[in-house]
Amino acid sequence: MSSVVRIGLLGCGNVGGALVGLIDEQRDAIAARTGLELHVTRVAVRNLTKERDVVLPDGVLTHDAAAIVDDADVDVVVEVIGGIEPARALVLAALEAKKPVVTGNKELLANVGAELFEAAEKAGVDLLFEASVGGGIPLIRPLRESLAGDRIRRFMGIVNGTTNYILTRMTEAGATYADALAEAQGLGFAERDPTADVEGFDASAKAAILASIAFGASVVAGDVYREGISAVTAADIAFADRLGFVVKLLAVGEAVDGEVAVRVHPAMIPKDHPLASVRESFNAVFIEGAAVGELMLYGRGAGGRPTASAVLGDLIDASLNLRRGSAAGVGHLPRAKVRAIDELRSQYYLNVEVYDRPGVLAAVAGVFGDHGVSIRSMEQEGLGDEARLVFITHTATERDVQATIHDLRGLDVVDRVGSMLRVIGQE
Amino acid sequence: MSSVVRIGLLGCGNVGGALVGLIDEQRDAIAARTGLELHVTRVAVRNLTKERDVVLPDGVLTHDAAAIVDDADVDVVVEVIGGIEPARALVLAALEAKKPVVTGNKELLANVGAELFEAAEKAGVDLLFEASVGGGIPLIRPLRESLAGDRIRRFMGIVNGTTNYILTRMTEAGATYADALAEAQGLGFAERDPTADVEGFDASAKAAILASIAFGASVVAGDVYREGISAVTAADIAFADRLGFVVKLLAVGEAVDGEVAVRVHPAMIPKDHPLASVRESFNAVFIEGAAVGELMLYGRGAGGRPTASAVLGDLIDASLNLRRGSAAGVGHLPRAKVRAIDELRSQYYLNVEVYDRPGVLAAVAGVFGDHGVSIRSMEQEGLGDEARLVFITHTATERDVQATIHDLRGLDVVDRVGSMLRVIGQE
Repeated sequence: MSSVVRIGLLGCGNVGGALVGLIDEQRDAIAARTGLELHVTRVAVRNLTKERDVVLPDGVLTHDAAAIVDDADVDVVVEVIGGIEPARALVLAALEAKKPVVTGNKELLANVGAELFEAAEKAGVDLLFEASVGGGIPLIRPLRESLAGDRIRRFMGIVNGTTNYILTRMTEAGATYADALAEAQGLGFAERDPTADVEGFDASAKAAILASIAFGASVVAGDVYREGISAVTAADIAFADRLGFVVKLLAVGEAVDGEVAVRVHPAMIPKDHPLASVRESFNAVFIEGAAVGELMLYGRGAGGRPTASAVLGDLIDASLNLRRGSAAGVGHLPRAKVRAIDELRSQYYLNVEVYDRPGVLAAVAGVFGDHGVSIRSMEQEGLGDEARLVFITHTATERDVQATIHDLRGLDVVDRVGSMLRVIGQE
Repeated sequence: MSSVVRIGLLGCGNVGGALVGLIDEQRDAIAARTGLELHVTRVAVRNLTKERDVVLPDGVLTHDAAAIVDDADVDVVVEVIGGIEPARALVLAALEAKKPVVTGNKELLANVGAELFEAAEKAGVDLLFEASVGGGIPLIRPLRESLAGDRIRRFMGIVNGTTNYILTRMTEAGATYADALAEAQGLGFAERDPTADVEGFDASAKAAILASIAFGASVVAGDVYREGISAVTAADIAFADRLGFVVKLLAVGEAVDGEVAVRVHPAMIPKDHPLASVRESFNAVFIEGAAVGELMLYGRGAGGRPTASAVLGDLIDASLNLRRGSAAGVGHLPRAKVRAIDELRSQYYLNVEVYDRPGVLAAVAGVFGDHGVSIRSMEQEGLGDEARLVFITHTATERDVQATIHDLRGLDVVDRVGSMLRVIGQE
């Protein structure tokens, strides 16, 4: 009754190893429900002698990933190597051989996704990638299928667990950025070189993938405006708290007048916004659809087993489609028209360190006025050479705010312009 | 290039009307993305002369729903009439005629779902029902597809917007139940006869559907243990707040030792739980999977356009499958072994009104002890005849707590046992 699916697995690290274990645990339940009997028959790894948690029969492990892709006895290919090459060449070869591919590789999709989608379309097989964004959280399937009849206006995601952990510790324990980073490194939530996470590169790749699917137009990682969290200070977080906000690193995509705006930056969000309660290393994506209104999808954005759960959901889907001889492709994605960050309209938080002299507020406020940036609230903190002015603006364009910052730097009464954070407001 | 899909719509109320409008708005975008050109060609309504927001060509409206189902010029049937009959007969007739069916009818699925799933399987066409639970929130598709390889241990859902609105107002404005209900009725969030919502019938139907899909075994509405919110008092909510909890009406399903436990009742949940921040008429379902860990799916649980968005996602999926000649059925669901509420293990909140005399606590605590129910915390409130003891227990079985309540009622020193709420704890 049940049909055997022979899986070729490329990569057997954290996610690949968890996948092998999960398939073993769930094989009978999956067969009972779907009629598919899943077997991992070939596994490509770099190091054949490394100790692994998973037990694999003799002869399953190999160095030769290309041979797995070509193997007539492999029905479906799972790629969890990461990086662009050789993953790209292997995925293309698998698709050309009419083998469905499941991948969790965000770099691959955020850089050459459009090429791969076309190859899958041409071959008439599935290329599924739920695990590439948000670990185990269903995001790609809801965007592609559940919301297929809706028009998505905007998404805002917390898609990097490392930075969310750091910002949570800064918020809840009053930690400095450096201490929170060190703590995250100690717990294994951050890499020794944390650049990819804290400077927003990881989130940018995920933002590009989400934007491509949400808006039906190809966005690559390089299109995404990017700022990380390394300049966020404990003072910014304390101000945000007092004003009713929390600071989160957001991946934002918006469809505006036929263009797509995609950016990653820390932002102040109101405490009663659903994203504000996403703590520690959890991820969530908040979606605004023209008909569906507000949605949020929340869960574990990383980790071997959560991510393997997403890979396995795709693997079952791809295998069922293969058995039916059908595929649910993304198809041809036209290149997105990417909107420049200069065009962004937002509220802004600005922290300006000043010399506390008569007339300082008038001079500073005058610069805002020169650029048409309207001030919503202002607070002075400290005195003398420690004085600072903290502003929240009404909605303004990024261009005008950047010009304001430029001119503020030229004022005698301004020591330095500290942080600038975009504010997700209710205007 | 594009294939025309002719839709027969049964029912043109809130959701049906919104669907017609949404299809008109999105027709070109859907055609560009999927190659499907959707047209609503027949619409069955009870009242042909009623004024409607949607404009339909002459001859589209009819009284005769059965004729739409039989019409050779209808490819896909959408059922949004509600209720069991005639919806059941119409859906079965459509499936027998090999027409895919999309429905948002929770009563139908929660009572005769298994029969309909089998009919769809036999016909080899889709029966999709995303809109039956949680309005526009993707729930059924993530459970069926994204988590197809995982083992779901538990779900806890806020699936009724009316009761969540009432409880939110009681929590945030300190309103009484009666005042909050009257306010909800004034705003159109509650019916004039609110029984189906406030007594948990609506949530029970949704719990049965979620449990059937999450655990792969047929659960009907009558299997669901049910308590509503009409006995929840402002005092309960104030106590909960002081103890770090909020009160929510939860639909809970658990898989325990091969049995399925499904229940709807008000519960105290910790303020830092993701469900605690689901306010007003929003819905959310929190899911615990063996591999994926904790997930939450949040959004608008009702309303014409959010629900129509879910129907339209299903309609596109069903139409694509029809064109491919494939279907993604639920198949045969064995009858679930339903676990009795007596077997529940939970923490409990109990509010006991007592006469304030020496020895009262010893007498009351003795009854808990007699039934092996261990007390985690106790507070006395008020004095004299207004005195009450508020208990939170450690984990105990429902049977033992019910026996405790029974015996407390027999004590001279007890005036009455007020509320009992189950506590979602961290034990």
